[in-house]
Amino acid sequence: MSQQQPSDEEARERLIDLAAQFYDQFEDGEIPRMEVPTRSKSNIVFDEDSGVWVYGDRTSSRTANSVRGARKLLKGVYTIDFLAQQLDEDRSSTLRELYYLSESWDEEAAQFSDQSESDKLVEDLEIVSGVKREDFHMRPEESGATLMGPLKLREQTRRGERVIHCQEDVGEGGYQIPNNPDTIEFLDTDADFILAVETGGMRDRLVENGFDDEHNALVVHLKGQPARATRRITKRLHDELGLPVTVFTDGDPWSYRIFGSVAYGSIKSAHLSEYLATPEAQFIGIRPEDIVEYDLPTDALSDSDQNALESELDDPRFQSEFWKEQIELQLDIGKKSEQQALASHGLDFVTETYLPERLTEMGVL
Amino acid sequence: MSQQQPSDEEARERLIDLAAQFYDQFEDGEIPRMEVPTRSKSNIVFDEDSGVWVYGDRTSSRTANSVRGARKLLKGVYTIDFLAQQLDEDRSSTLRELYYLSESWDEEAAQFSDQSESDKLVEDLEIVSGVKREDFHMRPEESGATLMGPLKLREQTRRGERVIHCQEDVGEGGYQIPNNPDTIEFLDTDADFILAVETGGMRDRLVENGFDDEHNALVVHLKGQPARATRRITKRLHDELGLPVTVFTDGDPWSYRIFGSVAYGSIKSAHLSEYLATPEAQFIGIRPEDIVEYDLPTDALSDSDQNALESELDDPRFQSEFWKEQIELQLDIGKKSEQQALASHGLDFVTETYLPERLTEMGVL
Repeated sequence: MSQQQPSDEEARERLIDLAAQFYDQFEDGEIPRMEVPTRSKSNIVFDEDSGVWVYGDRTSSRTANSVRGARKLLKGVYTIDFLAQQLDEDRSSTLRELYYLSESWDEEAAQFSDQSESDKLVEDLEIVSGVKREDFHMRPEESGATLMGPLKLREQTRRGERVIHCQEDVGEGGYQIPNNPDTIEFLDTDADFILAVETGGMRDRLVENGFDDEHNALVVHLKGQPARATRRITKRLHDELGLPVTVFTDGDPWSYRIFGSVAYGSIKSAHLSEYLATPEAQFIGIRPEDIVEYDLPTDALSDSDQNALESELDDPRFQSEFWKEQIELQLDIGKKSEQQALASHGLDFVTETYLPERLTEMGVL
Repeated sequence: MSQQQPSDEEARERLIDLAAQFYDQFEDGEIPRMEVPTRSKSNIVFDEDSGVWVYGDRTSSRTANSVRGARKLLKGVYTIDFLAQQLDEDRSSTLRELYYLSESWDEEAAQFSDQSESDKLVEDLEIVSGVKREDFHMRPEESGATLMGPLKLREQTRRGERVIHCQEDVGEGGYQIPNNPDTIEFLDTDADFILAVETGGMRDRLVENGFDDEHNALVVHLKGQPARATRRITKRLHDELGLPVTVFTDGDPWSYRIFGSVAYGSIKSAHLSEYLATPEAQFIGIRPEDIVEYDLPTDALSDSDQNALESELDDPRFQSEFWKEQIELQLDIGKKSEQQALASHGLDFVTETYLPERLTEMGVL
């Protein structure tokens, strides 16, 4: 998938091209079909060069040689028609609206039977057309992450341009990242690095303590597993402004996966890795070694924590010396810890001691 | 609980007064104790006059006449000391930080054994002191709701004042409501009413279609069960600017509870009803009658949906003719529907037909 954002007109053309293929196939006496990379775990490989997940070479055919297959293509054509019209009118919609909207289509066989069917079709169209959902103007249900730090940007909204400084022009809540951050242009920044933070409590702590101001950090709130918009803006800040990306999460296997999705992409959206993943991202912690070194309050690992850690030992994204050592240490001590557990050394420990020490060690400060 | 926001100094004094009571009790040869309204379901009553939930007359004693009771009071005194210092230094913290921070206290018997213990103590202190958690500078873990509409406000942040117009000075994501909206002063508004919306997908639809602009609406995103900050700013907008509050949710029993918590308060935080609830709030829909009238796509009611509806029939908050009729109709048809299901009539149906018709009927437009 190209990293460049296609214009609405280009996105529309690529969709129409897809539909046009079916016509060409009809004309040539062929049964209409669409080739899609096989989207199973067995066809997803970790690309060592780019450092992200990508699809392998296997493809599957969606073909009209059965009633079921023909119906799938019909739904595809109706969806393409809807998306092309949406782009033409500069509208947008959510995945759920698309599902409900199909009930208004005249051809009943083209209507979706549940939302997972329409969601999957949109992903197929993303992959085959090489155009991202955002460029079809399809929004997610929720985004909601925020950004705070020395960055001035211009957002293109439906109501005109907005120039916003993400410290001076926002309240304590910060700047709300829009659903499609490709509508943003970065104007000016004093930032030295990006600090992506898992929990709201820690994000608020950093902002209250003025960490973004003192260290010229852009504090991005991940809100647990980050939305596409959050990963996208993080990647763009890295690529376009040359800012190092650091990720600060709880110290448990689920949080390591949050780091993994920022850095390497996810199996579920391997077709978007080049667009969303930042392989250069570095993990700050909480590291299992921190639990020992800083004597943090802990909880015992549950069975599912242990299983998740063991499966990470086999995960190609976690094959570095660093991760093997940390995961084995954690299995050994049998404990996990949260980022807010640093408060056991006082409310300022995280901003005055832990982060400055770790970021200096990592060469970021 | 007083609706007025106490100053930091007043909040601090009320906390110190609590601790001083223990000294007085010691001096009088009494066993130190604290009286708290009994916080069980049986001691919560629906106040017909104010239209919100409040505590009844029963109280429970926290007394030092057992080791366990004495330890509870000790934890209370340490927490009061921490909160008083926090107010003195104009700092703030999260409930989770308080729990972890207790590990740094010199007296081990004062440390909390889990977070539910410290959370509950803070609620007790809220009730007994008549000062809200926000006025102790205790933050929630996550808030994250947004506001969009013709409102100019001034937010007092730690970095100085920010004057923000919630349409002209924000991106498509809107204005991020801070954890404590009592730091906000409303400067100027062209708004005619508040439209509080359950889902992000619908919030984005209204903003994309320019509903806030066309109808002078303040669109508040509830994000499912709304955070305290969201309910508080809604109430303040109603009380201070005289704006009618309307609530737009999915059409199922869980969403009726979302409306209930905006309008009447919740059993869990009955001591805050006067501060958070807006009894004048009106329910837009989705109403069971809408499912029939607009022929919306539906799902069948599950067993737990049915049980929830039946328990709402017994809930004092839902004793009006309107709610009885709607709930009985829903049990009768056995179906529920989502707000985004309105998209089955096209993406503009909600803003061009459904909302204008309903709001006119309700006397809001």
